[in-house]
Amino acid sequence: MSETTTLTITALQERVEAIFRKAGLNAVQAGAVARVIVAGERDACKSHGIYRIEGALRTVKAGKVKPDAVPELLLTEGSAIVKVNAQGGFANPAFELGVPALAERARKLGIAALVINDCTHFSALWPEVEALTEQGLAGIVMCPSYATVAPTGGNKPLLGTNPFAFGWPRKGTSPYVFDFATSVAARGEIELHRRAGKKLPEGWAIDADGNPTTDPEAALAGAMLPFGGHKGSAIGTMVELLAGIMIGDLTSPEVLDYLGTTTLSPFHGELIIAFSPKAFAAGRPGDPFARAEALFEAIVGQGARLPSQRRFAARASSQADGVVLTAAEIEHLDRLLALGLDSIA
Amino acid sequence: MSETTTLTITALQERVEAIFRKAGLNAVQAGAVARVIVAGERDACKSHGIYRIEGALRTVKAGKVKPDAVPELLLTEGSAIVKVNAQGGFANPAFELGVPALAERARKLGIAALVINDCTHFSALWPEVEALTEQGLAGIVMCPSYATVAPTGGNKPLLGTNPFAFGWPRKGTSPYVFDFATSVAARGEIELHRRAGKKLPEGWAIDADGNPTTDPEAALAGAMLPFGGHKGSAIGTMVELLAGIMIGDLTSPEVLDYLGTTTLSPFHGELIIAFSPKAFAAGRPGDPFARAEALFEAIVGQGARLPSQRRFAARASSQADGVVLTAAEIEHLDRLLALGLDSIA
Repeated sequence: MSETTTLTITALQERVEAIFRKAGLNAVQAGAVARVIVAGERDACKSHGIYRIEGALRTVKAGKVKPDAVPELLLTEGSAIVKVNAQGGFANPAFELGVPALAERARKLGIAALVINDCTHFSALWPEVEALTEQGLAGIVMCPSYATVAPTGGNKPLLGTNPFAFGWPRKGTSPYVFDFATSVAARGEIELHRRAGKKLPEGWAIDADGNPTTDPEAALAGAMLPFGGHKGSAIGTMVELLAGIMIGDLTSPEVLDYLGTTTLSPFHGELIIAFSPKAFAAGRPGDPFARAEALFEAIVGQGARLPSQRRFAARASSQADGVVLTAAEIEHLDRLLALGLDSIA
Repeated sequence: MSETTTLTITALQERVEAIFRKAGLNAVQAGAVARVIVAGERDACKSHGIYRIEGALRTVKAGKVKPDAVPELLLTEGSAIVKVNAQGGFANPAFELGVPALAERARKLGIAALVINDCTHFSALWPEVEALTEQGLAGIVMCPSYATVAPTGGNKPLLGTNPFAFGWPRKGTSPYVFDFATSVAARGEIELHRRAGKKLPEGWAIDADGNPTTDPEAALAGAMLPFGGHKGSAIGTMVELLAGIMIGDLTSPEVLDYLGTTTLSPFHGELIIAFSPKAFAAGRPGDPFARAEALFEAIVGQGARLPSQRRFAARASSQADGVVLTAAEIEHLDRLLALGLDSIA
């Protein structure tokens, strides 16, 4: 077994933040981006952990995200919409900036929305729905991606993998959280099959002629398919409408036109909807949080799982014992810190 | 070919409304319930057309809906939540009562919610999202149902078929609208297979032991499955949380406990979220309605279909030429009108 190093979450945060500072990100960008990467690594969600640092740096190096952006909070008196302009920076510091105002309005009005514009979207949505649940709020978060998914019945990439995430707060335990692509698979999973020389499961993708394929190369040249047939296709379309067009930001085909590649983080906007269960349930019988626990018990009681449980178990372990990295991972972090953007080919 | 009768939409509305009046519904209940039934028949959506009258009457006869309920609008100054208490009546008149206030708040605040409590849910959600699009608003509507669907990985009915509907307004043409069950199939489709002695497609249902089944009887004794595996299961759970628990109304298992049957219309609440694209897009480049048209063209341009198009085509035909009913259907309506609740066994 190879040598490993155990870091506290704080130590890992410092290390990742230092890499981004070295690469030219200002403090708000580096801190926020590092936090979501460390959250991924902490939760043993390796696909959203330190593995992602290079992609973020590649986007910086390509000039497709502003490393020194300072997000701007745009508040309109008497509106349920809180807007943050990311000023061409990453979505993460913009989200952090907007959350307090969003939470305040959701508590006051019952429902409110946070719109992030002109951002480079980075990584998963679950850190964002979890940030809402920490405020005692339920939340829905969605955003477009790049055009890689064909609408059901079509044969060309148009929709993005358009993630859709939801969170519900729970007292004394981790929240109910899901976060998934509205495509059958993530694009990275197809790439992994290609590298491993493995065939894709049926139903994941079509080739450039619109025929079903299990060949990863043909799939990458063709299009991915939405999850759940026409229903997933419709949800993916809804994400383009609400979290692209409605908020005045790019749709998935527009993102792909703008970037010309799917190897950089996408530039677009994001829609976050926050609900105050307390405000909604006011005057009605029953405590919504206690009632939700009964539902979760009924799900778990019949042998089904709540989403994100593997992540939460890993989190508890990381919080207690630290995050374990391999010697190769530590070496990789050291190299990124030493070279900054020069580490990117 | 059998004899048919063509009725104008107005004439059909009068006839259906008269049936409900005869059965003891007051004017607001009868008018609103008849409108959604006639909308279904007009759109050649036979499963939600006059076929549904008996189910509504059966629910009245069972005493599970108040035929003389007068819904009550509950407005809280400075809230984005509009509440309507259906007072034990059908959801439809409560929805009609709440829409003007919902639209006004959504326009002013950007996003707003309508909560319907203590209602008997009746029929499809698309008439409701369409009512929002007629106001220039986008909308999401969801509600629980009865416990008939097992969460993914489970083996017992717990979630409902929990419909999820969305609408986006289009200028000069029918809106973009979808409305689907978050189960693979609707319960009625399994019942239709049973009556026809046909096997179910794979993946629709499990038997009482949790094993996959294609036998409709075994499926009805077991559980239906969510669409799209764990993702659809998660969305179905979200519907229970937001549109059942959060709004202080019954969840799908609670509805089934309360009714003791799936043959009556479910008693619970409903959540409607309205978005003002104009408010969200304010200050951003591009007209959201024009940009949405480009997305729809790209979908249709590659041979994919927009949802609800068959309904809209039928609607155009009904509006131009009237609604065509068979002699048996006319006879059925006459019988329901003559007998009122006595027509229900």
